[in-house]
Amino acid sequence: MPQIEADEAQAFCTRVFEAYGFEARDAARIADSLVDADRHGISSHGIQRMRMYDERIRAGKIVVGEQGETVFETPVSALYDGRHGMGQIVASNAMDIAVAKAEANGIGIVNVRHSNHFGAAGYYSRLAMDRGMWGVAATNSNPLMAPTHSARAFLGSNPLSVGIRTEHDEFLLDGATTAASLGKIEVLARAGRPIEGTLALRPDGTAIVDAREAVHDWRADHGSVSLTPIGGAGETNAGYKGYGLGLLVEILTSAIAGAPPSADLHSDDISHILIAVDPAIFGDVAPINERIDDMQRRIRALPSYDGQPVRVPGDKERDALRETDANGITVSESTLDELRGIAERLNLDRPWNSGPRNARNGA
Amino acid sequence: MPQIEADEAQAFCTRVFEAYGFEARDAARIADSLVDADRHGISSHGIQRMRMYDERIRAGKIVVGEQGETVFETPVSALYDGRHGMGQIVASNAMDIAVAKAEANGIGIVNVRHSNHFGAAGYYSRLAMDRGMWGVAATNSNPLMAPTHSARAFLGSNPLSVGIRTEHDEFLLDGATTAASLGKIEVLARAGRPIEGTLALRPDGTAIVDAREAVHDWRADHGSVSLTPIGGAGETNAGYKGYGLGLLVEILTSAIAGAPPSADLHSDDISHILIAVDPAIFGDVAPINERIDDMQRRIRALPSYDGQPVRVPGDKERDALRETDANGITVSESTLDELRGIAERLNLDRPWNSGPRNARNGA
Repeated sequence: MPQIEADEAQAFCTRVFEAYGFEARDAARIADSLVDADRHGISSHGIQRMRMYDERIRAGKIVVGEQGETVFETPVSALYDGRHGMGQIVASNAMDIAVAKAEANGIGIVNVRHSNHFGAAGYYSRLAMDRGMWGVAATNSNPLMAPTHSARAFLGSNPLSVGIRTEHDEFLLDGATTAASLGKIEVLARAGRPIEGTLALRPDGTAIVDAREAVHDWRADHGSVSLTPIGGAGETNAGYKGYGLGLLVEILTSAIAGAPPSADLHSDDISHILIAVDPAIFGDVAPINERIDDMQRRIRALPSYDGQPVRVPGDKERDALRETDANGITVSESTLDELRGIAERLNLDRPWNSGPRNARNGA
Repeated sequence: MPQIEADEAQAFCTRVFEAYGFEARDAARIADSLVDADRHGISSHGIQRMRMYDERIRAGKIVVGEQGETVFETPVSALYDGRHGMGQIVASNAMDIAVAKAEANGIGIVNVRHSNHFGAAGYYSRLAMDRGMWGVAATNSNPLMAPTHSARAFLGSNPLSVGIRTEHDEFLLDGATTAASLGKIEVLARAGRPIEGTLALRPDGTAIVDAREAVHDWRADHGSVSLTPIGGAGETNAGYKGYGLGLLVEILTSAIAGAPPSADLHSDDISHILIAVDPAIFGDVAPINERIDDMQRRIRALPSYDGQPVRVPGDKERDALRETDANGITVSESTLDELRGIAERLNLDRPWNSGPRNARNGA
């Protein structure tokens, strides 16, 4: 697959969002959230999503330039109305408020309603960590996850991210509360690989093995495929705990924020929760960080039974970052074509016209 | 199995803890935490644990009468030193502080070090809910869970509980971050049933199917068996997410509290975290509760593909409560014998001497 420079992707996406009418600062922030995902190897949430944002902006579902506003607050919390603005801007503004409250009062919890798809949850935990806070982010989504014993989707993929950075190390848990995201199954389908594990169900509860069947049926009828929670279907591997976590995210997003649950969503009216915690509320931070570092160092040194490295949440993404910083980010030909199509419609220079980096380099 | 009256179990256990030297109020609280678990069908954390507490109190590992003390605090947080007191007393005191801080400032986060086994985490979420708060409780434990790709236990079973009560309904997520607790595997072993799913691993990463083998080997050498996280072994059903959650609990307990991680524990020096949140920090509570009620009602009404009811976290335990309130709590003969042995040693009347309830009733 083609590899392109992250800087060029950032510059191109910024130009696109400016052409839609976003302020330069906001355009750069949206582009950053997408390219950041690609740089961390989370291409499902990277610039391949430009097509989706392009469609939703053109359809007027995303209100260009909207910043959102606080509609209720206490010293430790706020309710933020995104007024159907771009998810990345609304959620970043909300995390800014959470961080400010954490700086003043130790913790800030900001619930967001009337927002849009905000990209990868981990991006917002990292915003908090960049300012010395521990950061939590979660969102609801379209209906995807079926509660245990049902094969009817009700909850979203409802990703949850928790980020804790020390001086020398980082813990970044970031993932859907479904066992696999729809994007992961799309990747299997494109690669012609089967689904291992029980990740997707038909309405009768049988597992779908053919990833192409899952993607085809879901596109034809969203009600015909559901995703299982962390732990898979039924109770054998504790899927009911993953489902409980997904329902918790749903309560913490839509129920608090005053918006429809995932079950009733069609890519809009999405709710988030953003939390920043100042670790100083726990006491002297240095020894806490040392204990975290020591624990993570010992875990990475555990013997592996299958030759796969024993990792800490976020290690895989940091490895990917080193790789993409050296070699560029990987995008599919079809994504490059879509980006060129967007550029043409907006009368921008066609990007990567002379071919992607590895083509130029003969790699 | 014998069934006994919950009231009688409460009275007997209270007398036992009074005989050990606990104040009447504390003795009643410890007894309540155990009988409460049995009443909710969580017998693994019920009065069958009396033997463990008895041994640890007699060995001087649990300091009778110790209440613990706050050693650091902010308006929204505290660090509580349990000074090796009884886990139930220390954790209840800590949740009292968390609730007081939530009443004053919207949220209270209390970390606890130098505590002991505190029973079922959900008990403390319920303490918060009884006072109008949303409640979170988590604890580390002995080393049991192996991080993904390792079969060496490092983390504890690290249970996490989140409780949200509305006027008419309740959400109570309460369980280990391992797929199954050791207690659940002991139950399978006693019943002579095999382990379904990949719940327990040998050091070479192979799954243990025979529950009796798992229990036997673990008792002989704690290092010879590890438990898998929610999602099971490897990455197929997202076990790495369950492992990440277990590591998060470890950071939120031992790393913050300033105590050894689960990896280094031998049933003592356990750390907890207790959080109370006043839902009023999110705005008007009534419509939030209505949305939660509506969501949970709709989930319970979803079609089931296998005839098993579609439930919300906590439903199973509430069903068990109705059953035990009508018919008494179920205990094994061996537990009754252990309780009689404890009574004899403490010069108390032998309990259930005339036989348990269903024997008396001829049931």
